[in-house]
Amino acid sequence: MLSHEINQMLPFILQRENVARYEAGVVVIGDRRKYPFERAFVRCPDVESVAHAIEIMVTQGGGPSLAALYALASTARQVEGKPPAQINETLEKARARLVRTRPTNTALALRLEAAMQAAKAAIQQGDPVEPALLDWIEKSRDQAYENYAKTARHGSSLMSDGDGILTMCFAETAFILSLSMAKESGKELQVYVPETRPYLQGARLTAPSIHELGIPVKVITDNMPASLFDQGKIQKYFTAADLITLDGHVVNKVGTLQNAITASYYGVPYFAYCWGLDPSKPDRASIVIEERSPSEVKTCRGAPTTLDEIDAYYPAFDITPPHLVAGIITTSGVHSPYTLSNLING
Amino acid sequence: MLSHEINQMLPFILQRENVARYEAGVVVIGDRRKYPFERAFVRCPDVESVAHAIEIMVTQGGGPSLAALYALASTARQVEGKPPAQINETLEKARARLVRTRPTNTALALRLEAAMQAAKAAIQQGDPVEPALLDWIEKSRDQAYENYAKTARHGSSLMSDGDGILTMCFAETAFILSLSMAKESGKELQVYVPETRPYLQGARLTAPSIHELGIPVKVITDNMPASLFDQGKIQKYFTAADLITLDGHVVNKVGTLQNAITASYYGVPYFAYCWGLDPSKPDRASIVIEERSPSEVKTCRGAPTTLDEIDAYYPAFDITPPHLVAGIITTSGVHSPYTLSNLING
Repeated sequence: MLSHEINQMLPFILQRENVARYEAGVVVIGDRRKYPFERAFVRCPDVESVAHAIEIMVTQGGGPSLAALYALASTARQVEGKPPAQINETLEKARARLVRTRPTNTALALRLEAAMQAAKAAIQQGDPVEPALLDWIEKSRDQAYENYAKTARHGSSLMSDGDGILTMCFAETAFILSLSMAKESGKELQVYVPETRPYLQGARLTAPSIHELGIPVKVITDNMPASLFDQGKIQKYFTAADLITLDGHVVNKVGTLQNAITASYYGVPYFAYCWGLDPSKPDRASIVIEERSPSEVKTCRGAPTTLDEIDAYYPAFDITPPHLVAGIITTSGVHSPYTLSNLING
Repeated sequence: MLSHEINQMLPFILQRENVARYEAGVVVIGDRRKYPFERAFVRCPDVESVAHAIEIMVTQGGGPSLAALYALASTARQVEGKPPAQINETLEKARARLVRTRPTNTALALRLEAAMQAAKAAIQQGDPVEPALLDWIEKSRDQAYENYAKTARHGSSLMSDGDGILTMCFAETAFILSLSMAKESGKELQVYVPETRPYLQGARLTAPSIHELGIPVKVITDNMPASLFDQGKIQKYFTAADLITLDGHVVNKVGTLQNAITASYYGVPYFAYCWGLDPSKPDRASIVIEERSPSEVKTCRGAPTTLDEIDAYYPAFDITPPHLVAGIITTSGVHSPYTLSNLING
């Protein structure tokens, strides 16, 4: 499938121009904090404002990577015509700042590294860097969408007519496309979406996206999945993954693990979508879990949930071990979590 | 321990006069929806307003029982001096209305039935019914607090110095007293409290209560317990129970089950506090799970969490099977969930 065809199968929030786009040096990022109540965008004129937007969760999932790449192009625009060494140094600084925004999901770091190669090639050849980067980003983005479609096809093959499906947080394009493909092939599904506190990505992003596709969806709170399993309402559990280690540990939004433990208890398979593998992440010891500010736990849509003087704790991600994972969904198929290192070496 | 001594060991919200009190026919109920942001009370002049207050969650836990008993006294006051048959009929109607407010937790039904015996004895002897009921309620309440203290002593014995303790929802007097006793005996504890969506009883009631006792407490969201278990932060898991069947199934606020499954996966024991046993609830087939309006899932402190047109699902309770329960804490000790029918027959 072509990138623009895939785009048309997606709900508003996942259409590429609504994730992040580039307008003459300004990075325009879809504001997922306000969605679905508002369809707003944040305009970032430089790398610092993009980095800040990523840190304060204006975007998430695949969004930070794309926004960060455009921030690199914006940086190149600002130093266009300067000596090569200065361009290179400025871009390297920008890259380092952007990488620091997301310690857990290394997709962003890997894509920035690849983009830097394209920038360096342009610098060496004396070509203007901004258009070279934008060209690389567009090709890379098209490739990403084609990969989403391949991955989604495999995910969709795991969904059976009549399935109740549990997810967590916002599993983004590959998962949503899988649902869309399953629907197109006549499968009737019922999706259950935990709201995903504290930022409510499930209630705000996932549920409206699935509803927009015309697929039945129900929002639940994060304490309800076991009740649904116990009632026999769930046949499959799917999530995205911020990172999957080469030995099959799935790192994803906190809550993924307890649903995986519960799924295993009830004999329901858990599948994780994989955006790719990072050779520098062989095992759980190599994972950095981002701990966010406790204050974020103590509000919901701006309103306090407890007293100010009460402490809180916010581990943003958890780690699901491979024995709880039925399969890793990739562009090349659904793999055992125990064979991933073959994929990267093969 | 005497009832008033126990009262002094409790945080504001659990002090008996703040749960519910009786003022010349008016039932004054502590408004747990507004706590801890406001210390407000709802004044209910008749049985219908009390029933409505229970249904809209003005109070919960042990609160509905006490408020319902006072509603019976208030009803008696309104028909004082009428013919015995009319008094009896009016009280029976009031009782039926109050029982309907809580299909899952049958403590309320059982206590109303016992109170009706006291009312009927007064009617038969031609005594005024309101004071007879108030006298019965006071004795019954004192007995309840003494039972809390006995139960709490057993709960406290399960808490070890240095323990990380997980709870769920608001486990009320017996649990909070256990913590208080553990602290008095010099044990250092760290309590983790899931916020308990959608009504946030954990964040609003449990965490402030524990904080008021000077015990370290951290609020987490409902998707975080597994992350804490995985990090080795939890050594014991305690909850209250709305109902425990004679064959050891624990019915409690939704979310209790998935924490129990996760606790079992990590080898951490789960203990449930028991208010008593109901001979009419032998097994899980006898349990009625209250399903509340889906709309309640879609707001948090009044703010919408998703779009209005999106569906939701709200099972208010879940059922934890006995093989996931390490012990049932009662006035007489910590019992195996498999031996409860002996307690009621013995």
